[in-house]
Amino acid sequence: MAEPQFYVPSRCYTAGEVATLAGAVLADEAYAGNEISNLAAAEHGGPGTLVYVEKGRHAKLLGGLIAAAVLCPAELAARVPAGIAALTTSSPALAFAQIARVLCPAAASPQAVTGETGISPAAHIAADALIEAGAIVEAGAVIGAGAAIGRGTIVGPGAVIGPGCQIGRDGYVGASTSILASLIGDRVIIHTGARIGQDGFRFMPSARGLVKMPQLGRVVIQDDVEIGANTTIDRGALSDTLIGEGTKIDNLVQLGHNVRIGRHCAIAAHVGISGSVVIGDFVMMGGLVGVADHVKIGDGVHIAAASGVMHDIPAGQKWAGLPAQPAKDWFREVNMIRKLAGNKSRKGSGDV
Amino acid sequence: MAEPQFYVPSRCYTAGEVATLAGAVLADEAYAGNEISNLAAAEHGGPGTLVYVEKGRHAKLLGGLIAAAVLCPAELAARVPAGIAALTTSSPALAFAQIARVLCPAAASPQAVTGETGISPAAHIAADALIEAGAIVEAGAVIGAGAAIGRGTIVGPGAVIGPGCQIGRDGYVGASTSILASLIGDRVIIHTGARIGQDGFRFMPSARGLVKMPQLGRVVIQDDVEIGANTTIDRGALSDTLIGEGTKIDNLVQLGHNVRIGRHCAIAAHVGISGSVVIGDFVMMGGLVGVADHVKIGDGVHIAAASGVMHDIPAGQKWAGLPAQPAKDWFREVNMIRKLAGNKSRKGSGDV
Amino acid sequence: MAEPQFYVPSRCYTAGEVATLAGAVLADEAYAGNEISNLAAAEHGGPGTLVYVEKGRHAKLLGGLIAAAVLCPAELAARVPAGIAALTTSSPALAFAQIARVLCPAAASPQAVTGETGISPAAHIAADALIEAGAIVEAGAVIGAGAAIGRGTIVGPGAVIGPGCQIGRDGYVGASTSILASLIGDRVIIHTGARIGQDGFRFMPSARGLVKMPQLGRVVIQDDVEIGANTTIDRGALSDTLIGEGTKIDNLVQLGHNVRIGRHCAIAAHVGISGSVVIGDFVMMGGLVGVADHVKIGDGVHIAAASGVMHDIPAGQKWAGLPAQPAKDWFREVNMIRKLAGNKSRKGSGDV
Repeated sequence: MAEPQFYVPSRCYTAGEVATLAGAVLADEAYAGNEISNLAAAEHGGPGTLVYVEKGRHAKLLGGLIAAAVLCPAELAARVPAGIAALTTSSPALAFAQIARVLCPAAASPQAVTGETGISPAAHIAADALIEAGAIVEAGAVIGAGAAIGRGTIVGPGAVIGPGCQIGRDGYVGASTSILASLIGDRVIIHTGARIGQDGFRFMPSARGLVKMPQLGRVVIQDDVEIGANTTIDRGALSDTLIGEGTKIDNLVQLGHNVRIGRHCAIAAHVGISGSVVIGDFVMMGGLVGVADHVKIGDGVHIAAASGVMHDIPAGQKWAGLPAQPAKDWFREVNMIRKLAGNKSRKGSGDV
Repeated sequence: MAEPQFYVPSRCYTAGEVATLAGAVLADEAYAGNEISNLAAAEHGGPGTLVYVEKGRHAKLLGGLIAAAVLCPAELAARVPAGIAALTTSSPALAFAQIARVLCPAAASPQAVTGETGISPAAHIAADALIEAGAIVEAGAVIGAGAAIGRGTIVGPGAVIGPGCQIGRDGYVGASTSILASLIGDRVIIHTGARIGQDGFRFMPSARGLVKMPQLGRVVIQDDVEIGANTTIDRGALSDTLIGEGTKIDNLVQLGHNVRIGRHCAIAAHVGISGSVVIGDFVMMGGLVGVADHVKIGDGVHIAAASGVMHDIPAGQKWAGLPAQPAKDWFREVNMIRKLAGNKSRKGSGDV
Repeated sequence: MAEPQFYVPSRCYTAGEVATLAGAVLADEAYAGNEISNLAAAEHGGPGTLVYVEKGRHAKLLGGLIAAAVLCPAELAARVPAGIAALTTSSPALAFAQIARVLCPAAASPQAVTGETGISPAAHIAADALIEAGAIVEAGAVIGAGAAIGRGTIVGPGAVIGPGCQIGRDGYVGASTSILASLIGDRVIIHTGARIGQDGFRFMPSARGLVKMPQLGRVVIQDDVEIGANTTIDRGALSDTLIGEGTKIDNLVQLGHNVRIGRHCAIAAHVGISGSVVIGDFVMMGGLVGVADHVKIGDGVHIAAASGVMHDIPAGQKWAGLPAQPAKDWFREVNMIRKLAGNKSRKGSGDV
């Protein structure tokens, strides 16, 4: 049995076509007819592939490159080996992402597992749920009373949408996902197994043990958000948990109740954000970061992987460490300790 | 389309009624008739809301408060703005939790997704499983041979209960959860996607690679436990994994095989507890804590977020750090290092 | 109702039989007829049990041991209490694992939840999927177009196998698991709720916010791999994500796109491995370890729990700490800091 490939171009393209589609400049017209039949990473290129190469360390891959065409910055075009079409652009990775969508249209957005269209007869849908025409609801999905699903949205096999939840258009709710008490915008991608809208974690000591604070709020997710597999986002306690437009969240992330994340943030895997934390726009967090409850993080902050944030962070700063502090301070401590202990300092320890 | 609210009071209550229901004292009878139509956090109060305010930093919210009534300690009553009914009590948050259950009864316990009662015709139940009258089993749930589910318990859509498992009364097993080899008490809440009773992780090197130690034990969960979304609890290897009465566990927590947790503990998100760890009663752990295998942790221990525990901890101590040690020792080191490196010391770094 | 046990021996065995089956030496023929009706941990032994005891700290359990027979090294046989059959072997735990498989055959591999054989009528299977005779597909499972499942493999309730995926023979796909864009070998065990083959996490800043790099690769899992509950493994971006033969991965682990893990590795819970990391054979990682993207880790490396790896690690080394460095260097720093701060040094802080 042949090994399946999951996304390959639907047909061959020439380097000239790709240059046009990507808005790139073909450095040498002699290679306009180079045929592109597949996409590859530069380190795994081969005959017929389109690859991309960025400035910096990545550029050294040009030496041994095998490909039909390469998207690269203009200043690297002279280093592209003979026979390969150089397609120059200021943002090779961005151009590659764009062209991959054109060559492999199925890769541009998540697909239904079953290939079913419309509402599967094996889905379980409340009589008063509103499923807009053009939505797909796959086998085993369960949709509660009064829920609403917009057109073009895929609800995957076994996904559960609680009563009253609203999900916008052209979205994706992966297999086995559960969504409760949530309002979700358009073009939101929620990967398999994510848990959204369950109760937050607040218990108060009493003579009879821990007493639960009822969790009455919602989760509000704005347009163009992406949420990773098995990530958990708790409903608000009294107000709402909020994820701003365009923010991307990786797998296995925990967002506590009332957390408010701004727009266009990127939050890596295993991050844990405690209750009522407020995060600005364009914030980036590495993996395994923890943030203590009620902390405020300003716009554009970068937090290095595995940091433990116990204090507010002003806009624009880079922080790192446990407990977290400005990254350059933390790396100064790391290097000081290494020197004091007679240990070897390591190149790159000053990067975030 | 109007934005759905998920839990609002079923009717209006007066401040006088709420004082009686909450066991609080109405400070000024003139406000007994203030009408309460909703619940809110003090920072998001509004006309017609009931809020609560605690002592300490929280009290400053009284200044600009807008609400129909506020639960607060007696010593703050004088600072409540005119027009708002002050309902005094020694434990405002606890009183608020109690009254929220009365005003929004649906919030007092998890609800079925589909609104179905009884056993859904779309559930898959072994012929000899015992489902007590009054239990709810939702669409797509699967219940194995000889399993037993008590009255008042909800088994959510797509939840899987393995053969021989027993679940008590008035409990909740969220959507897409799986439970194997487990005995579970009454009033146990298991949120969506939790994985309970799968094999633990023990492999021994051999000439043929890693050899698995068969996992033969069970998971035993006592009454009134709550377990967070996507949390994983492995079955015992040869004895049982045990969660004591009233203990609350947050999302994405990992409990290894043979772990024994006492009563009334609170374990925050992303905590990882290795095999055969023994934890006492009333223990609290912040998020992202790791505990090495076979460690023993005494009653009433508090462990700060992101600590890595490699040693036994005597009862009553507060620990922190990586590797963890008594919290005051760890913070002494943190502050010493900051001073040595010429970095800024941060207020609050001595708190756990 | 009697408390269920999940795995007990199907009949009584004598110590003599067990010695033969385990390839162990019965130290004293007088005990050859000791009857074994159950398996236990040495600390929870009792009449009729078979237990095992290893060298080192574990050996002190021999003093108060109650059991019918004990697997132990020859040099401990003299310390086994009178009446207990000593079965000597160089690897007691390994011998115990082996004998447990014989005495409790059901424990040797995961079991179907429903006890169904063949394909459940309540499963949803694409017309052109290939389910080899002897595979089990349980209720609520969904299998996409062109997928293939080998004989002897169990696909649990609610598991979702995406279009084109191939799963080998004698494997196990637990309840509520989802598998997309993957090729999986023989005897692979995938526990409940694992997410395999969803998109990886790569976004590039642009004037219109974060732009997603399409994820076109696969997940390739070789024979005899085991993957823990709720673990997430992303598909490759342009090449494949690869897990080598015999590697064992615990619960709640995150493997980013293009990660390549070698053979016979053991990766503990909550580990997060960023994109394009390359890991050799026989590598061991403790829980909560983070590895930065593109790092290379050599054969036989051991990484202590909660370490944060930012640099390549040569083969055979033991590393620890945040940021990680050779373990002895990290513990030297820990001890130096403790001494400088006047804090207590703790026994065992030099172990990994």
